Amino acid sequence: MRYRKIPDESIRRLPVYLRVLLLVSEKGTQNISSRKLADLTHLNPNKIRKDLSYFGPFGTPGVGYNVAELIKQIRAILKLCVERKAALVGVGKLGSALLGYPGFKMYGFEIAAVFDNDPKKIGKRIGNITVEDISSLGGMRKRKINLAIIATPARAAQNIADKLVAKGVNGILNFAPCYLKVPKKVKVITIDIAMELARMPYYLPTYC
Amino acid sequence: MRYRKIPDESIRRLPVYLRVLLLVSEKGTQNISSRKLADLTHLNPNKIRKDLSYFGPFGTPGVGYNVAELIKQIRAILKLCVERKAALVGVGKLGSALLGYPGFKMYGFEIAAVFDNDPKKIGKRIGNITVEDISSLGGMRKRKINLAIIATPARAAQNIADKLVAKGVNGILNFAPCYLKVPKKVKVITIDIAMELARMPYYLPTYC
Repeated sequence: MRYRKIPDESIRRLPVYLRVLLLVSEKGTQNISSRKLADLTHLNPNKIRKDLSYFGPFGTPGVGYNVAELIKQIRAILKLCVERKAALVGVGKLGSALLGYPGFKMYGFEIAAVFDNDPKKIGKRIGNITVEDISSLGGMRKRKINLAIIATPARAAQNIADKLVAKGVNGILNFAPCYLKVPKKVKVITIDIAMELARMPYYLPTYC
Repeated sequence: MRYRKIPDESIRRLPVYLRVLLLVSEKGTQNISSRKLADLTHLNPNKIRKDLSYFGPFGTPGVGYNVAELIKQIRAILKLCVERKAALVGVGKLGSALLGYPGFKMYGFEIAAVFDNDPKKIGKRIGNITVEDISSLGGMRKRKINLAIIATPARAAQNIADKLVAKGVNGILNFAPCYLKVPKKVKVITIDIAMELARMPYYLPTYC
């Protein structure tokens, strides 16, 4: 199935709908109205209806959306039905925490390789995976790894991104606090904790 | 100084400008044009000019912005000049990683208390801080802690948020993968790794 071009802002909300739909589906709910979906996601019902309208006309007035069908559609749009292999680069504190993060598996991501540049870490086993030398980045294509998670200091991140892209990586989840320059075909999603943190005080009552 | 109401989207970009300005300031740059700032932040120069116009007319045509002055202004708007104490709740893998995160200090946040519900963790020392029992949440007001970082599983997060708010917390950085319902005066910023992750495959070439 092909879909019309969906705005990034709508794509950003789809995982939120999906999470709520999976929860209500577990409880046996078969249909859900956009208003109920709005209550559960704390999003605007008009926005929800607009978002879901991109998938075609499959809500029924007075009945709502079929939950199983909506889950199927959102998973298809987000392409979550494919198992994907990812390399984790950097097993410092954050990298180690990410290695144990259950969210990856939930969305079909398997961390299939772990790299670091620290000789003390290379060769070490963490869970059931052995830390490899970043300077080689060996066997990425052979192992069909085309996603990467960067959890290194900012100064190392661009160089690593360049190497990963050269090895065929087309998606990077970047935790390093910096912008990554990559070719257009490569998607980077940066989760920059410091930037989120820095805007918090603005909303707090204390003044300078 | 009072500022006009600044849109959230602009506030979100201010820390990005600040980071770049601190970098160029270290290198001795005294003035910067919006175009140069755009190059360094990879943002649109018109957006930058618009964002900075909220602070008043202090850029000089042909010269640009005074770097030191701009840093001062952004820090004032973001209220980053005040030291703030935060409590970290949950010292699992992610919580432990956050405890060692240098970004907090950089923006004036001090993790002044750590809480968990695991009897094996309570009383333990991590770095120079002792893990306290979450059921008490004692001495929050006395220690002037009014920020919190939640790094617990989703099922525990709302209950903890309620308790924190009752203890006077007015800002929460939430890493639990869920929506938190709080009074209007409390600001919640959620960093939901799974939601960021789930939208990645949409941008990748494989189809379902």
